[in-house]
Amino acid sequence: MVSSITPEYEAANEQFAATFDKGDLALPPSRQVAVVACMDARLDPASVLGIELGSAHVIRNAGGRAADALRSIIISQQLLGTREIVIVHHVSIALFSRVIGPADDLQTDCGMLTFSDLDLKTKVRKELDQDVDHIAFLPFGDLEQSVRDDIAFLKKSPLVLDVPVTGYVYDVKTGKINKVEV
Amino acid sequence: MVSSITPEYEAANEQFAATFDKGDLALPPSRQVAVVACMDARLDPASVLGIELGSAHVIRNAGGRAADALRSIIISQQLLGTREIVIVHHVSIALFSRVIGPADDLQTDCGMLTFSDLDLKTKVRKELDQDVDHIAFLPFGDLEQSVRDDIAFLKKSPLVLDVPVTGYVYDVKTGKINKVEV
Repeated sequence: MVSSITPEYEAANEQFAATFDKGDLALPPSRQVAVVACMDARLDPASVLGIELGSAHVIRNAGGRAADALRSIIISQQLLGTREIVIVHHVSIALFSRVIGPADDLQTDCGMLTFSDLDLKTKVRKELDQDVDHIAFLPFGDLEQSVRDDIAFLKKSPLVLDVPVTGYVYDVKTGKINKVEV
Repeated sequence: MVSSITPEYEAANEQFAATFDKGDLALPPSRQVAVVACMDARLDPASVLGIELGSAHVIRNAGGRAADALRSIIISQQLLGTREIVIVHHVSIALFSRVIGPADDLQTDCGMLTFSDLDLKTKVRKELDQDVDHIAFLPFGDLEQSVRDDIAFLKKSPLVLDVPVTGYVYDVKTGKINKVEV
């Protein structure tokens, strides 16, 4: 068991706040864009895309899936005026689709097992003795297709405005984004 | 209509990738923590908390609500071994609870109207001619209580492991986080 990280976060924030000078930014994102990206620890959307503070909503979840971001996108568009969506998935999320097991196994690129929605539900039933049939975990196998699927999902959804949607795959090894052609 | 931001993101990424040297980080977050934060454009969790690349999952949605992060938290804990949760809401999300209207109105701190789940659903019905009764938009009025509610939600959920959960309120005016006592 590692110790809680909160004392470190609190100390880092004291330093951050000591020189903070961006207290006058407006609530609506100045560039009217919502970025939907994976929660992956190796992906920092702000530095990868050069997102300036105050310019974009950043929505993040496992895989950067659009369906799981829908509530936030509706609020972003209807209440805060964003008019563009940028999706960022990344190569190693593909591990979600290939590996299931203890975290240690994930240190390697083991591709022996396949994670499906059913696999994770079976694991949760075993580990937590809980039924999670009501949650779609949204794994995917083909990375570029997952970006295309999410663009199509947003384009088709009657709850999402007809705005430009661009999708990228981020490579955690090189730091590069690659645009996915639709 | 502002022009698409993607050429700027692509140019910024070229610069970022040119000096990128963190390509060997492991998939599981090294500090075994998942941060759940608001999507707000003025909040950059990495700089506010000093999150090091590769150390933490960062899940973000409108309000930083735990219920909307549940799918990601389950994946984070069950597949990637995180064992701590840090919640970050922020003061100006309270505007979500007080203001509804075109984005321009939100430039001010107008507190004349109250945004409720029903308000937004009515707006979506009017603007998009769509029924969204199936989506809970999770607005809140009392900011500190919303953090306490989310901590309680995670503590009570049988789908979430019994791990330390700490909640903060971020002040977009000062850059400071303030811990919410439960």
